Amino acid sequence: MRGVVMYGPGDVRVEEVEDARIVDSTDAVIRLAAACICGSDLWPYRGIDKLNGPAHMGHEYAGLVEQIGDDVVNVKVGDFVVGSFVASDNTCEICQAGYQSGCIHRVFMTGTQSELARIPHADGTLVPTPGIPDPELIPSLLAASDVLGTGWYAAVAAEAGPGKTIAVVGDGAVGLLAILAAKQLGAERIIAFSRHADRQVLAREFGATDIVEERGDEGVARIKEMTGGYGAHGVVEAVGTQESIWQAIHAARAGGRIGYVGIGHEVDLNGLDLFFEGVHLEGGPAPVRRFLPDLIQLIWDRKIDPGKVFDFTLPLSQAAEGYKAMDERRAIKVLLTV
Amino acid sequence: MRGVVMYGPGDVRVEEVEDARIVDSTDAVIRLAAACICGSDLWPYRGIDKLNGPAHMGHEYAGLVEQIGDDVVNVKVGDFVVGSFVASDNTCEICQAGYQSGCIHRVFMTGTQSELARIPHADGTLVPTPGIPDPELIPSLLAASDVLGTGWYAAVAAEAGPGKTIAVVGDGAVGLLAILAAKQLGAERIIAFSRHADRQVLAREFGATDIVEERGDEGVARIKEMTGGYGAHGVVEAVGTQESIWQAIHAARAGGRIGYVGIGHEVDLNGLDLFFEGVHLEGGPAPVRRFLPDLIQLIWDRKIDPGKVFDFTLPLSQAAEGYKAMDERRAIKVLLTV
Repeated sequence: MRGVVMYGPGDVRVEEVEDARIVDSTDAVIRLAAACICGSDLWPYRGIDKLNGPAHMGHEYAGLVEQIGDDVVNVKVGDFVVGSFVASDNTCEICQAGYQSGCIHRVFMTGTQSELARIPHADGTLVPTPGIPDPELIPSLLAASDVLGTGWYAAVAAEAGPGKTIAVVGDGAVGLLAILAAKQLGAERIIAFSRHADRQVLAREFGATDIVEERGDEGVARIKEMTGGYGAHGVVEAVGTQESIWQAIHAARAGGRIGYVGIGHEVDLNGLDLFFEGVHLEGGPAPVRRFLPDLIQLIWDRKIDPGKVFDFTLPLSQAAEGYKAMDERRAIKVLLTV
Repeated sequence: MRGVVMYGPGDVRVEEVEDARIVDSTDAVIRLAAACICGSDLWPYRGIDKLNGPAHMGHEYAGLVEQIGDDVVNVKVGDFVVGSFVASDNTCEICQAGYQSGCIHRVFMTGTQSELARIPHADGTLVPTPGIPDPELIPSLLAASDVLGTGWYAAVAAEAGPGKTIAVVGDGAVGLLAILAAKQLGAERIIAFSRHADRQVLAREFGATDIVEERGDEGVARIKEMTGGYGAHGVVEAVGTQESIWQAIHAARAGGRIGYVGIGHEVDLNGLDLFFEGVHLEGGPAPVRRFLPDLIQLIWDRKIDPGKVFDFTLPLSQAAEGYKAMDERRAIKVLLTV
């Protein structure tokens, strides 16, 4: 089968790789309906995360079950399924508490920028859709696998809800979908930090009530002005830099909630500064599996359209161009047809 | 009046200071029933926090209202009152949400190791007891002002409750009272990290079900063993060092709760490490005011006896010896009679 392999910074190739196959009796193999590139794939592409040799890329997936292991009972061949970027048994105490990305048997997915993919813990990981989806739903279902689920988790962690003012740091796919989530969760006011006109349009469409173009201390000062001096009730951090995490912390009021889902790179939180801010920090790899059944239903019922974050589509064979477009911010998120 | 003044590391003197008096119309002046020394007073005593000139020490207090400003209506002269180490208006949005230590008008208290003390925002800050307390209740009421309220907040932040396993890092007064709080909140299992025999006894008396003497990675390994490999549901961090905060984070399971109330000194949290732990961090200066009415009632009804953390009593004039005893760990907490 063909798959996207990264050899080093900026070096992405599409080539023949070994077919995905059942390894454990709890595995499934799916045929991807489409693949996509994640903002987090840019960390190694930019050389910030180091690779240990060539890496078969991709951790988002939706598609048809093609094979199942002997112990798989919850999905069957022919089902259309969506799963999280972290495979989980969904039965351990951590999964049962809703933190499936911390499953005691978790497997971080890789190799889904491909035609086929092996899914470990298929029973716990995969959620079948109500039927075979119309093609126009594929981008949204694929988004549910990570960026929608991650944005949703961040909004939940920020305690978005009625009466709340939620600020969102980061206008990539995750930040934009955190806006969509905050809107669905009933937030009264949703303030998007963004200085890109195209992303501002999508932010508004997803539910942002205000846009702040300033960053850092100036951005924080604007949020304070807009909230009677208090700061936001909750803030989503969807970038992962030292500046962005402190922007999020400072934009929140004391006792406020930070839902942080940007993967922190070169971030150090000074203990004394953090202590006196008195905010809640909740984050990490999002437990997407917790939200998947509801997210799939919302997509199925056409109540949300998270697939709009895909603003550039290419065939899998041109994945390298997709990485380049995202790196250069010419695309928010790239869909790869397979 | 006499007060405790710190001139520099290890240099504590009791001397005449200006009488506490009404400055703002929302102030009260109280006559302390007793004073005490806090673990956090040791940071400047040990030279880790720098002083800007001599400091009138103390932030814990309970006593009789002696004067009130013209705008004070909730307390009257002659009331016995307890307040938090952070004065707060108790009316702003942050106070109303239960985060009074982050009050938009907050004042960090100082100068209560003394005969009299000025309390800003008296209406918001002070909570009258049901009557004039019996003398044996004074230590417990004084503990409510900070160490009990702080331990309680940490246990709440760690989500202590039925069915939960809570670990407590730190066997000072706050850690010990977090154990008491976790017990009151219904935690099933309470694991105290402690290697001091006298503190272990008090930990057990307050409700610890298990004691772990190991620290750092070894301590974490013990907690994992005791919890089926998962880690604790919640962990209280009541020390404030790099080792102790990571011990707390690693001792918790994914999705677990860290209630951190140790004031972080030379602590840096690496963003990537924190991200992949996937725990919740809640902490900072404890909103003691949120809990004071309930804590006072529990003490009044003799349901809890947090005053037991005072294991050394001295007259105010011998405060220097009290600091020395706490610094050398000969005392958990020192009561100063005034």
